[in-house]
Amino acid sequence: MRARIITIGDEILNGQTLDSNSQWISLKMAELSVQVVEATAIADTKEAIVKALDESVGKYDWIFMTGGLGPTKDDITKLTLADYFQSEMVFVQEAWDHIVELFEKRGRPVAKANKGQADVPEKSTYLPNRAGTAPGMLFEEKGSRLVSMPGVPYEMKYIMRHHILPKVEEEIKGKIINRHFRTVGIPESILADRLEDFEESLPEFIRMAYLPSPGQVKLRLTARGENGENLKEALDHAEKELRKDLGNDLAGNTEAQLAHIVGELLKASGKTLSVAESCTGGSIGQALVAEAGASAFFEGGVIAYSYAAKSDILGVNPETIKTEGAVSESVVKAMAEGVRDKFKSDFALATSGVAGPEGGTEDKPVGTVWMAMAGDFETVAVQHHFFKNRKLNIELTVVSALDMLRRKLVSEQEVIV
Amino acid sequence: MRARIITIGDEILNGQTLDSNSQWISLKMAELSVQVVEATAIADTKEAIVKALDESVGKYDWIFMTGGLGPTKDDITKLTLADYFQSEMVFVQEAWDHIVELFEKRGRPVAKANKGQADVPEKSTYLPNRAGTAPGMLFEEKGSRLVSMPGVPYEMKYIMRHHILPKVEEEIKGKIINRHFRTVGIPESILADRLEDFEESLPEFIRMAYLPSPGQVKLRLTARGENGENLKEALDHAEKELRKDLGNDLAGNTEAQLAHIVGELLKASGKTLSVAESCTGGSIGQALVAEAGASAFFEGGVIAYSYAAKSDILGVNPETIKTEGAVSESVVKAMAEGVRDKFKSDFALATSGVAGPEGGTEDKPVGTVWMAMAGDFETVAVQHHFFKNRKLNIELTVVSALDMLRRKLVSEQEVIV
Repeated sequence: MRARIITIGDEILNGQTLDSNSQWISLKMAELSVQVVEATAIADTKEAIVKALDESVGKYDWIFMTGGLGPTKDDITKLTLADYFQSEMVFVQEAWDHIVELFEKRGRPVAKANKGQADVPEKSTYLPNRAGTAPGMLFEEKGSRLVSMPGVPYEMKYIMRHHILPKVEEEIKGKIINRHFRTVGIPESILADRLEDFEESLPEFIRMAYLPSPGQVKLRLTARGENGENLKEALDHAEKELRKDLGNDLAGNTEAQLAHIVGELLKASGKTLSVAESCTGGSIGQALVAEAGASAFFEGGVIAYSYAAKSDILGVNPETIKTEGAVSESVVKAMAEGVRDKFKSDFALATSGVAGPEGGTEDKPVGTVWMAMAGDFETVAVQHHFFKNRKLNIELTVVSALDMLRRKLVSEQEVIV
Repeated sequence: MRARIITIGDEILNGQTLDSNSQWISLKMAELSVQVVEATAIADTKEAIVKALDESVGKYDWIFMTGGLGPTKDDITKLTLADYFQSEMVFVQEAWDHIVELFEKRGRPVAKANKGQADVPEKSTYLPNRAGTAPGMLFEEKGSRLVSMPGVPYEMKYIMRHHILPKVEEEIKGKIINRHFRTVGIPESILADRLEDFEESLPEFIRMAYLPSPGQVKLRLTARGENGENLKEALDHAEKELRKDLGNDLAGNTEAQLAHIVGELLKASGKTLSVAESCTGGSIGQALVAEAGASAFFEGGVIAYSYAAKSDILGVNPETIKTEGAVSESVVKAMAEGVRDKFKSDFALATSGVAGPEGGTEDKPVGTVWMAMAGDFETVAVQHHFFKNRKLNIELTVVSALDMLRRKLVSEQEVIV
């Protein structure tokens, strides 16, 4: 099956917005063996949309169109689609009820501009969007299925997850199986070297893909064939080999975020965690809390951004900060011990580093980060040398600190995740 | 001037790589008044490249092509271009010397695969790439200028910065001026209602676009015309009217993040901030710290995820938590006051809510969030009713809490940002 992605929006073409929707859709399609042949960003003008439709309808199995469905007048996708498919607009009561409900919940009157959002072209199938006010639409024409969705990422994802992906999944059931794995702390090239023999040993019908992100590489094994049972068996065998090769460097056979994996390990062991964050400023807490159910293991923590917070709240000796600096082994260890004590948690993680772009010294250049882990064992600390980029350094610190705890939990529990 | 961006690479179309090159080029072109009409990602096959060339050569003033110039065999852009423009390959001594020099620096022998990289089609202008081994190429044909560059972002940027941007800068005659604004806490549709008259009053050559994200809508005014002075004057007038219409709902004429805007306001007033985060779990701290220079105003805070943290660390009366619940006006106010006291900051923000998807009650359904602000005034608290989506609820809470402080700071300082 072949697909095209069409992103509608001047904000993409003048560089104001990064088009992450296309990547997300591409990734999902790759998992379902739908080949994205082209991904195009176009202006939100009738002319550009019609040109893209001419190029696509009847030529691709799937056409994914995002953007241009908001209530304001610069959003003209829907009218253009109705026109193109020579279809009258019909009012959808369900869509309208949902819009009214959304506004009522927020205690606001429905705006005039939202009125038209409950209309969809007669020829389309209405795709409910519980994540926003603009409904999705599915057109079937000349052998193409065209999905029109809002450009807001979580609304697009809602529609894809609830209406489109299950449809495609049903169509390919048993013929394509994906399995995901997460590795942490190993650069892609090193990983590729380590897995060279493993890759060679894979049967023709299983392919492996590397999906790198800061500090992590996801691996995807895709098996394709007619017999689902055979595929599953072959994947089981491959997974066993992969686990042998990677050991604890493998963070699980899951697409779940690292924070989720750590959370599951903590829950399984009935242990709790607190954090003391300096350079990460709350980002570890944020990552943990982003996953539902964090209250089962996460006590909270202290964002100790200032010297005063480190000493007054966490009990770090001000003398140590003065002599060794806030970014030091002694301080980060004291932070971890201080917060663990304060929050009476089983484990504690602490971070202190020079995230940049300013604040580096010859001794401790930008990218220098200390992190520590405390528990019912001697507190451990590690120093990392990351990069010049603030955002990246914070992200890598979060990943590395969580992975420190993951490795500890895995080694303690001897469980396989 | 009209441009098209063509991104060549399977890694984009299967979702492995996020195409950030297109955004960067688009941003640069917008600044230079070159209108990017389309941005397309295609596979690295000869067929796909030829199709894209057919669609582009002679139809755009500029064609920016990235990717497919590496030394490995799946990179076929250069051969396809030579073929397409019926051009012989010629060896460029300068390109070869540079490749040899790069490998010598790394202490490696030149790989066999790199040999062909010093060749470029005779009809193209060789564009030296000091950032890597693959040279850029400039073709001029049928009124189009086509630039072929490697896909590695810093190599692409090197070639653009050194060979292309200066050229375009010199050539601009017509003008496009963009101005950006940020509004917080008003849904797009309500905003559109409020700005209906304003939009009507805009002259033909100024267009307004709404760029929504959770809890916020950015507005962009774009003026196009031949006389830059006139455009600027008309935009000044439009901005004045917009400010009149929106008042404090306008968070500034800037593309900066809300956390940055709040940070700037705090710095301008010499005031400091601390946070007490329950449902947001560190996300406000994270947003503040993501901006460089946060230490000037951010003291830190407490992630008070558990009841114990709320009472033991922040001094919230456990009786109050028991009788009114952790998600309540009294508790969130006490959290804000407690953290302000503890961190000796001028202001404090606190959050407590049911982020979901579990934990909702009839009384306090998922999406119920209390937030408070403390300072040298009577502590204020607001209740919000957000949605069912955890991630979205957390994001909206961060935005709303920061906006609460922004409005306070703006009204106190009577400054215009």
